[in-house]
Amino acid sequence: MTKPLNIGLIGYGFMGRTHSNAYRQVSKFFDLEYQPVLKACCARNEEKIKEFAENWGWESYETDWRKLIARDDIDAIDIGSPNNTHYEMALAAAEAGKMILCEKPLAMDVAQAEAMTAAVEKAGVANMVWYNYRRVPAITLAHQLVKEGRIGRPFHYRATYLQDWTIAEDVPQGGATLWRLDAAVAGSGVTGDLLAHSIDTAIWLNGPITSVSAATETFVKERMHQDTGEMQPVSIDDACMFLARFENGSMGTFESSRYARGRKNYNTFEMNGEDGSVFFDLEDPQILQFFEYANPTTGKKVEDHLTGWRRIHVTNFEHPYMDRWWVPGCTIGYEHTFTNALSDFLKGLETGEPAQPTFRDALQTQKVCDAVLESARERIWIDIN
Amino acid sequence: MTKPLNIGLIGYGFMGRTHSNAYRQVSKFFDLEYQPVLKACCARNEEKIKEFAENWGWESYETDWRKLIARDDIDAIDIGSPNNTHYEMALAAAEAGKMILCEKPLAMDVAQAEAMTAAVEKAGVANMVWYNYRRVPAITLAHQLVKEGRIGRPFHYRATYLQDWTIAEDVPQGGATLWRLDAAVAGSGVTGDLLAHSIDTAIWLNGPITSVSAATETFVKERMHQDTGEMQPVSIDDACMFLARFENGSMGTFESSRYARGRKNYNTFEMNGEDGSVFFDLEDPQILQFFEYANPTTGKKVEDHLTGWRRIHVTNFEHPYMDRWWVPGCTIGYEHTFTNALSDFLKGLETGEPAQPTFRDALQTQKVCDAVLESARERIWIDIN
Amino acid sequence: MTKPLNIGLIGYGFMGRTHSNAYRQVSKFFDLEYQPVLKACCARNEEKIKEFAENWGWESYETDWRKLIARDDIDAIDIGSPNNTHYEMALAAAEAGKMILCEKPLAMDVAQAEAMTAAVEKAGVANMVWYNYRRVPAITLAHQLVKEGRIGRPFHYRATYLQDWTIAEDVPQGGATLWRLDAAVAGSGVTGDLLAHSIDTAIWLNGPITSVSAATETFVKERMHQDTGEMQPVSIDDACMFLARFENGSMGTFESSRYARGRKNYNTFEMNGEDGSVFFDLEDPQILQFFEYANPTTGKKVEDHLTGWRRIHVTNFEHPYMDRWWVPGCTIGYEHTFTNALSDFLKGLETGEPAQPTFRDALQTQKVCDAVLESARERIWIDIN
Amino acid sequence: MTKPLNIGLIGYGFMGRTHSNAYRQVSKFFDLEYQPVLKACCARNEEKIKEFAENWGWESYETDWRKLIARDDIDAIDIGSPNNTHYEMALAAAEAGKMILCEKPLAMDVAQAEAMTAAVEKAGVANMVWYNYRRVPAITLAHQLVKEGRIGRPFHYRATYLQDWTIAEDVPQGGATLWRLDAAVAGSGVTGDLLAHSIDTAIWLNGPITSVSAATETFVKERMHQDTGEMQPVSIDDACMFLARFENGSMGTFESSRYARGRKNYNTFEMNGEDGSVFFDLEDPQILQFFEYANPTTGKKVEDHLTGWRRIHVTNFEHPYMDRWWVPGCTIGYEHTFTNALSDFLKGLETGEPAQPTFRDALQTQKVCDAVLESARERIWIDIN
Repeated sequence: MTKPLNIGLIGYGFMGRTHSNAYRQVSKFFDLEYQPVLKACCARNEEKIKEFAENWGWESYETDWRKLIARDDIDAIDIGSPNNTHYEMALAAAEAGKMILCEKPLAMDVAQAEAMTAAVEKAGVANMVWYNYRRVPAITLAHQLVKEGRIGRPFHYRATYLQDWTIAEDVPQGGATLWRLDAAVAGSGVTGDLLAHSIDTAIWLNGPITSVSAATETFVKERMHQDTGEMQPVSIDDACMFLARFENGSMGTFESSRYARGRKNYNTFEMNGEDGSVFFDLEDPQILQFFEYANPTTGKKVEDHLTGWRRIHVTNFEHPYMDRWWVPGCTIGYEHTFTNALSDFLKGLETGEPAQPTFRDALQTQKVCDAVLESARERIWIDIN
Repeated sequence: MTKPLNIGLIGYGFMGRTHSNAYRQVSKFFDLEYQPVLKACCARNEEKIKEFAENWGWESYETDWRKLIARDDIDAIDIGSPNNTHYEMALAAAEAGKMILCEKPLAMDVAQAEAMTAAVEKAGVANMVWYNYRRVPAITLAHQLVKEGRIGRPFHYRATYLQDWTIAEDVPQGGATLWRLDAAVAGSGVTGDLLAHSIDTAIWLNGPITSVSAATETFVKERMHQDTGEMQPVSIDDACMFLARFENGSMGTFESSRYARGRKNYNTFEMNGEDGSVFFDLEDPQILQFFEYANPTTGKKVEDHLTGWRRIHVTNFEHPYMDRWWVPGCTIGYEHTFTNALSDFLKGLETGEPAQPTFRDALQTQKVCDAVLESARERIWIDIN
Repeated sequence: MTKPLNIGLIGYGFMGRTHSNAYRQVSKFFDLEYQPVLKACCARNEEKIKEFAENWGWESYETDWRKLIARDDIDAIDIGSPNNTHYEMALAAAEAGKMILCEKPLAMDVAQAEAMTAAVEKAGVANMVWYNYRRVPAITLAHQLVKEGRIGRPFHYRATYLQDWTIAEDVPQGGATLWRLDAAVAGSGVTGDLLAHSIDTAIWLNGPITSVSAATETFVKERMHQDTGEMQPVSIDDACMFLARFENGSMGTFESSRYARGRKNYNTFEMNGEDGSVFFDLEDPQILQFFEYANPTTGKKVEDHLTGWRRIHVTNFEHPYMDRWWVPGCTIGYEHTFTNALSDFLKGLETGEPAQPTFRDALQTQKVCDAVLESARERIWIDIN
Repeated sequence: MTKPLNIGLIGYGFMGRTHSNAYRQVSKFFDLEYQPVLKACCARNEEKIKEFAENWGWESYETDWRKLIARDDIDAIDIGSPNNTHYEMALAAAEAGKMILCEKPLAMDVAQAEAMTAAVEKAGVANMVWYNYRRVPAITLAHQLVKEGRIGRPFHYRATYLQDWTIAEDVPQGGATLWRLDAAVAGSGVTGDLLAHSIDTAIWLNGPITSVSAATETFVKERMHQDTGEMQPVSIDDACMFLARFENGSMGTFESSRYARGRKNYNTFEMNGEDGSVFFDLEDPQILQFFEYANPTTGKKVEDHLTGWRRIHVTNFEHPYMDRWWVPGCTIGYEHTFTNALSDFLKGLETGEPAQPTFRDALQTQKVCDAVLESARERIWIDIN
């Protein structure tokens, strides 16, 4: 027996597209009790949201998100609108007893994130934050290898998230499509947009971060506003780098930029432990690199003349999620990470085991982001509790 | 204004899934006049086809393909059933005046392919063969580079298509899911299944093949039949390799196997010309490697200290098909090649410029496949006219 | 106790340099009983050979190779002159009871190679052919993996040797430095120069080749002679490709060209067996790629989620030759393959176990080369006994 | 006319070998006025230095470095002994008017480095520090690309130097071969041994570093002393990471460790600028990766569909140093970097243009190393003047 799950989506931008696609596709590939129904989508611009609804097959649309939340025929609210709207919407949705799927980063700051976490926990509603990259099969596999003890005592973690699309000085900021360059809407620049992903993955794989020392930079000081055409100071961090200490005693380096010429979506991490290492690069998402030094099952070291970095093509049926898609050797794409995440969320409803990351998990990432920004401002190490 | 295009799909296996997905997705991402409607699917096994129809959203189903073809509410027949069924179905569909989209290889042999080509041309119906890999954006880009004159006078073409899934002697043959190992159903082994792709791409990029010298091998001589459990001789070619001469004077090597341990879907080609070279590997489908020696626009050689193989991450908006999907750096997956192909077919209906490869194009590939098999049997060079 | 071994080297070209370097260096890095002494070098051009002797520290020089061979103070003759001189020199050196180290290919054809082999065997002199690439540590490691049973039953072998330096039509042919483009001196083009290396490696790793089907091409039909300035027909094969059957039942493809734009010294091979595969590329000589499917020691399959191609950085102390050079992670270069080979030759004198490949081994490679050229001429398969 | 240059080498360890090799080889490959003569080597252990002298062809040996410096027949002193000996030796050699080639890091701290720099400058003697990696042809090429304006305005610099050979707790410390693990002899751990290389390269490519925030870690707290067998606290930094600001406004991250499982000599850097980027990894030393966005010669952007990271195989005759070695496609090894460096030093004597890095250049690197260690101790940003 399947059960319908009525979705109300807020936002029709890039994330509106990826989420809509996930709702349409998930039941075609995964065996799930809960089947999402594209009940209603919502945005202020009626013309745009109407067209969006038609294209993606949403049954109805709203132009006022409070109305959407108030609708009885909606089971779950998906918050896909800019960062500065998450807080108010999540509080209202929790109060209305709706499940919540919220885009990342969870909030504008820790204070908001704490209130939002308290709200969903008090309301007892299912909640998840769309840190979709956890569901890249190769990243999920990295997590599996850690859990299987294949890395051993961890020494190092290093992550970069590099892009290059804002180098040109004539890229405007703000407005409907470029709000990520406006700190009033986005909260921060690369820290909340890109490093938040890196931090979420790092905590998942390597545990809590306890202190950071950071620096940020804004390379282009003024940009034209997309709507008004006026030149304005740039308020976001164009680039951010930080050192970290993890609770488990390992060390970390993190760096993000939108000024790394030639890197398009270069979200990488490497983890080095006593028994093995892993490396991942989102530009080659089908690959997890793995160095095996000792095998925890056999307790044996790999023969010295056979050691090397292994390129695991993460498309076997035995790999996370891959038995649901095609056949070995056939890759999946960017949007599948959302579909995989949604599948986990729906499976969580079945099993009662909440899909990760919850708001509480994402709060932890928010704490690191805030500490990073404070450290960069104050030029001191900041501890995270 | 959009126009519905009613599809009737035959087959519910692996290709049934990829085609169904394409029909569901294409209008969400491409702006097209013709909008496919999942009108009816068809297979002999009623239980299976019913479930398939429900999962993918087909409005109805049939268990007799002749009935499907006879239905007035069907505009286009999609032949996704095993190779030995293509001929009869295509002839019937053409006679009924239906458009035809046929899985590859087109036919069991040249005689069938010629009759099928004649039939669709006589009927004047739109037709296409699903050589989907032409629509991997990196392969389409390779074709673009050739057309832009960036390769120059061609000297060499080499292709491999390697897999390893039939090495184990206990893989059975025949039956519903393993008919590709049964020559009576598949026509041949790797030659029709894998090399046909390589040949289709080669002809597209480098023009007609005029002669071949080939060898095939069957490494495992007996396998159990999937349905009956009886041991039977293996009738297909497990591996096939051949030398080729192209009409343009260049030389080619081709090889395919399902016994290449460690290769999962290693469909590669390299083309070397006077002014540049390209290399592609389907296991890293987002990449086209390009060596630029001279730039046809400037007429200049690349400076000697700067020459090198370039890894083009084929996810820019300027790359084939990629403006329809996500953003630079975000990859698409295996099934998107079918969606891209379908989009081209539908666009061809709009423009009157038929999408390639047509039945006539695929006939050319069939001629090479037949010549290859004959050459392997006779141990002589075979000319292709 | 060390023993001097007096060397007489014929030739001062590219191979003269690599061999001289090996004689100078080998005792500094390897512990050997026999210590080469750079006694005399030889070439017809006195001015050149004098300068060469001074630069490399040869104690004396000769301008007549017969005199060199006649000298009592010479223990071993190293033939580093063009291919058409090997035969006569080797016969004379063998008759004089000298050890012989001969550059590859051994001879102009099988008849010469047989006579040379008979001569050294009759004379009972130590002999080796400089197929130096066997001593790339990664290739030696590949051989070790085969011997350790890590590949298992072999199915496929494929090799390419691609370069691009003769594409320009104004590259002259013949003369002192470009004799490799003159069939009268070189015997053949890429077949003897490049494919001979590929064949030598293939036989070493995968055993005898029993039949071939080949094709060759000469892309530039006329070139200017380097000395005379006259335009002359090009007599060599610019490119050669062939299919092969091995005695062990596996199949092979081979291809070589000097027209593969972007490939500089792209000497690659891949071997696929039931239990594992290896891949090598001379442009990344420090790497052997290895796919492990089953481990012959444990008899266990690698866990399905961990399989992948491993990049073995062949610089560990446990790797062939590498304990004699630097430390793990530090690479060696092209010329070290000659030094490693020389070390093996000298060690062979100590142990009485001749270093490979001997003249007899190289005769086998010559037989394949001749069969390849005949097959290309006659357009038929040729068997090799 | 050539001139002999009499060398006196102190030290017979790993660096003693690489330097001896360079003195033997440089004149064979480079055309130089000054020809090094292996006049004398020196170490306290007579048995060892005698054997070393014999193996490498040093004409004589000393067991007291002061005697070596005092010898009239020595023109240049090469300091290849442990770090805590550099200071005293350099001062004595300068006073004796000898040229000095000193291993890196220059000194134990900035105070020593300043005194040493003052000494050689006062004495007016030629001086160089063996930061040999500047002479990896690919790194020299990176420097050339920067100078040619191909990177443009710099935004980011990131460097790692990772190894894994000290993970095992039973690796001893101290003594003749493991003094690098003893802070009293080495000055520091990875900071002086590995990061010093990264910093030297960074300053060469990207200019002065003005401030740093660092953290270090010692993962194994106690090790047995190699000579005494006693357990002792480990005094060095096992790992070090730091953030940096460059004078030109770009940001940098640096990290080094000997606990990065799977990394053997992973000395990498990446530089991102407005017009291009470069990436290098010492484990693939023959490759420089280059991303070209705009060409400063033509002033044109690369066409959007052609952009990609280019793997430059740095073995063309047009590449730094490579016209002196073999032919395109043939790589050189680790020790060649010392030979290349020596060639530059000798050429500097001819031209009067001192080879870099001089003591003064290396002093700058020492300042950064000291600031890094202080920052790690104090947990604050440190400015460097």
